[in-house]
Amino acid sequence: MNDEKKNRKHKQSMQALKSRVDSSIAAAQTEKGLCVLLSGDGKGKSTSGFGMVMRSLGYGHRVGIVQFIKGEQLSGEEIYLREKYPDMPFYQMGTGFTWDTQDRQADIVAAERTWAYAEELLKNASIDLVLLDELTYMLAFKYLEEEQVVNAISRRPAQQSVVITGRGGGTGLRELADTVSEISSPKHAYESGIKARKGVDF
Amino acid sequence: MNDEKKNRKHKQSMQALKSRVDSSIAAAQTEKGLCVLLSGDGKGKSTSGFGMVMRSLGYGHRVGIVQFIKGEQLSGEEIYLREKYPDMPFYQMGTGFTWDTQDRQADIVAAERTWAYAEELLKNASIDLVLLDELTYMLAFKYLEEEQVVNAISRRPAQQSVVITGRGGGTGLRELADTVSEISSPKHAYESGIKARKGVDF
Repeated sequence: MNDEKKNRKHKQSMQALKSRVDSSIAAAQTEKGLCVLLSGDGKGKSTSGFGMVMRSLGYGHRVGIVQFIKGEQLSGEEIYLREKYPDMPFYQMGTGFTWDTQDRQADIVAAERTWAYAEELLKNASIDLVLLDELTYMLAFKYLEEEQVVNAISRRPAQQSVVITGRGGGTGLRELADTVSEISSPKHAYESGIKARKGVDF
Repeated sequence: MNDEKKNRKHKQSMQALKSRVDSSIAAAQTEKGLCVLLSGDGKGKSTSGFGMVMRSLGYGHRVGIVQFIKGEQLSGEEIYLREKYPDMPFYQMGTGFTWDTQDRQADIVAAERTWAYAEELLKNASIDLVLLDELTYMLAFKYLEEEQVVNAISRRPAQQSVVITGRGGGTGLRELADTVSEISSPKHAYESGIKARKGVDF
C-alpha cells in the first residue's frame, strides 16, 4: 500500500471511529459523583487514586483521604499533601501491614476508628472526592462489616465521588462501584531483584 | 472457632507471611531508575502515572512530562501542574485523538516533534522521573519507530525513572520495562450512561 492510500484509509477508519466515540459520549448523560474501585494484584492502584486526587485539586475540588493499613512508612504522596495541603482531611490507620502488627484485636479497633473518620467524610457534601486507600483489606480480613461500608458509600451526597483501592473488595463493593478497574502486573521489577524506588514505588 | 483461637491463628499466619515478605525485600538490592509500563484497556493508566508524579514531587524530585495525543481537552492534572509548577518541563502533542484529526501526515509530524522533546528529557540526568503519557499509540500507529523509542529509553541516565502509559505498547517496550501493569475495566460508568466526571475522568 503506498503512502497516499495509507493516508486515505487512515482517514476513513478514523471517521468511522469518531462517529462511534461521539455517539457513545452523547448517550452518557447522567451527572453524578462516581464510585471507582481500583482492584487487582498489580502495581498502580494507590498511585491511580492519588492521580485522581491531583486531577480533582486541579479543578479546586475538596478532597478527603483515608488510608487503611498504610501510614507506618512515609510515602511521597503523604509528604506532598501534608506539606501543600495541611488542612486537607487526611487520616491514616497507621498500624502498618497486618503481617507487621500480628495482632487481630488491635487491628480491629484501629480499623473501626479509621472507618468512623471515613464515614464523616462520606456524609460531608462539601467534600468532592473521598479516597479510601486500601479499604478492601479491611473487608477481606473481616475487620469491618461489608454492609456498613456499602451502606455508607451508597448513601453519600449525590455529587461526591469515591475512589476505593486494594486487592479483592468483595461482591458488595463491586456491585456498588460505577467503574471497576483490575490491575495485574505480568512483570514486576521486584522479581528481578530491583529495590523499591523512592518516587515510584513509595 | 472462638475469638481467642482466631486471634492466635491470625498471629501465626501473619508471622509466616512477614518472614516471606522480609526475605523477598532483602533479596531485592539493585538500586536504579525504573521503567514502568502502564497498559491495558481499562481506566486508570494516566492517573496512575500522575500519582507517581505526585509521589516524586513529594521527595523534591524533578519531573518531566510529555503527553502524546492529549492536549486538546484540558484536564485537572494539566491545570494543576501548570499552575503549581510553571517551570516543569511539560509538553503536549496537542493534536487530540487520531479520530479527531483524521490526518495521518500531520499526526506523524506532530509525533516526531513531540518525541524530539521526550528524547531531550531522556538525556537529562537532572530529571528524576519522565512520564510519557499515551506514548504506546504512537508505536501502534507507526508514527514513531519502536527501535528509536526503545533505544532512547534504555540509554537514559541510570537513576532516571520512566513511566509509559497507553494500551498495547508492543514487545520492545514490554521487554524493556522493569514493571508492566495491565489495567482492565470489567465495569465502566460510561456503559451505564453516566457522564465523564470532572476530577475523576479528566
